[in-house]
Amino acid sequence: MSKELTSQVLGELLEARNFMGIKAALAGLTPPDSAEAIKEFEPAEQAALFRLLPMQDATEVFEYLPVDTQERLIHAMGNEQAVGIIDAMSPDDRTALLEELPTALCAKLINDLSPKERAIALRLLDYPEHSIGRLMTSEYLVLRDDWTAAEALDHIRSHGRDQETLNVLYVVDDHGKLLDDVRIRELLLCPLETKVKDLRDSVFISLNATDDQETAVATFRKYRRNVLPVVDGHGGLVGIVTGDDILDVAEEAATEDIHKLGGMEQLDEPYMNISLSKLVQKRATWLVILFVGEMLTATAMGHFEEEIEKAAILAVFVPLIISSGGNSGSQAASLIIRAMAIGEVTLKDWWKVMRREIYSGLALGLILAIIGMLRISVWSAFSPIYGPHWFLLALTVSFSLIGVVLWGTLSGSMLPFLLKRLGLDPATSSAPFVATLVDVTGLIIYFAMAGAILRGTLL
Amino acid sequence: MSKELTSQVLGELLEARNFMGIKAALAGLTPPDSAEAIKEFEPAEQAALFRLLPMQDATEVFEYLPVDTQERLIHAMGNEQAVGIIDAMSPDDRTALLEELPTALCAKLINDLSPKERAIALRLLDYPEHSIGRLMTSEYLVLRDDWTAAEALDHIRSHGRDQETLNVLYVVDDHGKLLDDVRIRELLLCPLETKVKDLRDSVFISLNATDDQETAVATFRKYRRNVLPVVDGHGGLVGIVTGDDILDVAEEAATEDIHKLGGMEQLDEPYMNISLSKLVQKRATWLVILFVGEMLTATAMGHFEEEIEKAAILAVFVPLIISSGGNSGSQAASLIIRAMAIGEVTLKDWWKVMRREIYSGLALGLILAIIGMLRISVWSAFSPIYGPHWFLLALTVSFSLIGVVLWGTLSGSMLPFLLKRLGLDPATSSAPFVATLVDVTGLIIYFAMAGAILRGTLL
Repeated sequence: MSKELTSQVLGELLEARNFMGIKAALAGLTPPDSAEAIKEFEPAEQAALFRLLPMQDATEVFEYLPVDTQERLIHAMGNEQAVGIIDAMSPDDRTALLEELPTALCAKLINDLSPKERAIALRLLDYPEHSIGRLMTSEYLVLRDDWTAAEALDHIRSHGRDQETLNVLYVVDDHGKLLDDVRIRELLLCPLETKVKDLRDSVFISLNATDDQETAVATFRKYRRNVLPVVDGHGGLVGIVTGDDILDVAEEAATEDIHKLGGMEQLDEPYMNISLSKLVQKRATWLVILFVGEMLTATAMGHFEEEIEKAAILAVFVPLIISSGGNSGSQAASLIIRAMAIGEVTLKDWWKVMRREIYSGLALGLILAIIGMLRISVWSAFSPIYGPHWFLLALTVSFSLIGVVLWGTLSGSMLPFLLKRLGLDPATSSAPFVATLVDVTGLIIYFAMAGAILRGTLL
Repeated sequence: MSKELTSQVLGELLEARNFMGIKAALAGLTPPDSAEAIKEFEPAEQAALFRLLPMQDATEVFEYLPVDTQERLIHAMGNEQAVGIIDAMSPDDRTALLEELPTALCAKLINDLSPKERAIALRLLDYPEHSIGRLMTSEYLVLRDDWTAAEALDHIRSHGRDQETLNVLYVVDDHGKLLDDVRIRELLLCPLETKVKDLRDSVFISLNATDDQETAVATFRKYRRNVLPVVDGHGGLVGIVTGDDILDVAEEAATEDIHKLGGMEQLDEPYMNISLSKLVQKRATWLVILFVGEMLTATAMGHFEEEIEKAAILAVFVPLIISSGGNSGSQAASLIIRAMAIGEVTLKDWWKVMRREIYSGLALGLILAIIGMLRISVWSAFSPIYGPHWFLLALTVSFSLIGVVLWGTLSGSMLPFLLKRLGLDPATSSAPFVATLVDVTGLIIYFAMAGAILRGTLL
């Protein structure tokens, strides 16, 4: 049954107050599918639907809703219902919701949680935003060195019900320091009397709770893991992070970078859900900034109005030249921003990158210069459009192209380093931003070149 | 020890032919770290280092090398060494390598594999490129309905050694049809005499082997899984896909889209590793295409040379107007391309998107038009720069901005749909591509508007 159809059926059942029917309909769906169907309703109706589910199911379905839907729903629920669900949520999903709620509401809800969950929630929220700590869950099992495999399996049998993963178990010492990870297969495959310490190889990978979430993505990729333990500054085990959260982090970071590269603020909601006014607002801010920046081109062109009056043909090549600078800048910026995001390039590489980009910029500029030269020469052979001084004009265009492409390449590649060095997001040096910068300087390069080459002939 | 230091130590040991030392050095590293250190060497040296490792370790380290390094290394190895490693590789990593190798070499290597591995390799390569089938591994365990938990655990103990995951086990019928997935926790937590069929809830999520890999990413995200089973057209279990491969697919797809959005071919190698000539080549192709396209602006401007000669002031606003079109087009293209990539927007949404973008384009164009109008009015109040007809000029610029921004927004949002409809990658409608398209039409809009408004005054 499609998402639309399920929502429609649920809507009819809700209108008819057929609560048994709703329970039956939802029982046949996986929690993610229930969430997708329930998402289509108004918050008040959603709250009603959730009241029909047993708390355990309600929580699971709730966890699969997008955070902005969760937030609206919390406002629509009574305090008791909201606290019940938030108390039962996985710690990682709960953190993602709590950090979006208004501070007062967040504080009130946390205060009403059970003491155990309150302590976990507060501890996780204590980690900085975008840190690995905020992704952690405390639903994992620890083993001790002196346990036998049989004792470990008993421990799993009695405590394994609510854990995120049983694939990997963690061995800690008396102070909670992480000693090793042990795969469940090793426990299952060894004789029952084997000690945990004999299963250990003391080679394990862990994340630091205060590190940036991008570090976690890179580590998961490098070591190809589906779950990793997280330690504090003293090596103490403080939580685990699972691969599904990392996939979300990676996809959301890529979306954010793509939106920023496209020259706007990132949308926090899916394109089809976001309201039109929010959509326009997210785009208008940067569009206006770029427009105001681009007004400098009018100022720059204004300075060369006299030249244009003398030789209108010069104006003809302005779009071609500035767009070539913009395009080469956009290439360089996209390359470097993505390489930084996935950790291929770090701040200390700026000099190596600059060297490569000087060579690339010169090579690319030369290629365009040759094509530009050919174009003007060939056209001039058949038409008088470029006048008697066509060769000097061609030289002006070609030299400008080399300068503009080199400048575009350099600004596009170095701006991300500068922004990162200043503690800002490199993706903010979006392609249009680089293009605007390059447009103004490109005009100056072009008209300066024209002044030097064409003085006494066209000018 | 840092990557550089490890490589240096290994290099010195290799030069001194201290093979015991190399073995000891590599034994202290995790396979991903060994791979990172070995990557720095020349292929012939890499082959020598691999010969020093036991086959099992060598294979694991080899699997962590990037595919292009693997490929060069295979060429440098003797046939026996290469076949040994390829035979022992995980089926999913092996497919990723084999699909990159020249056909003749690939056929020869497959032919030399053990019959069992040959059959697996051929079966996986039979799935289309970029299909989920190519990501599959056959290293999973199946259970039967009539087994008890004790029998299932025995089966795991005897066959669990080489499987990718033991977290989830798959129940199939006599014909290999997938009936359900069972988590190992359920086996561990239930009485030993429980039948597998009593553990089943028959609610499971699976992927289709021939579906696109992007579908797999979306499904993993929606259901928050770390592993999913893959079925053929008849529901038969043909393999599993693990979350680490999905994270790779998602990150590589995002990189590809970002490179394409930046207006170039995607780099297949990391920025810092790719040779300068390849880097220039990947960028030159699109830069030249865009340059040749942008030459149309020179043609278009050429048609308006007479107008520019009459009123050079018109040329002054050309960069401002065309870049506003380019920026709004770049925003729309990035939004839609990303929304398509993560499945938020599909082909059938084109009409809804078009309606939203018409509203957005009009709103954004209006905002810029008002700012443009203010700018020219304010400047004119203090300086004679825009002449006596400044108000008509301001009208020309403002109306052009509305037209150009609307047109930019529409082309940017509809081009991805058109490309996808034609079976091409929507990301090819890169921001610079949209900008080029919008530049030419933007010029025509602007000069047409000028002709209509300024005829008899400036023109």
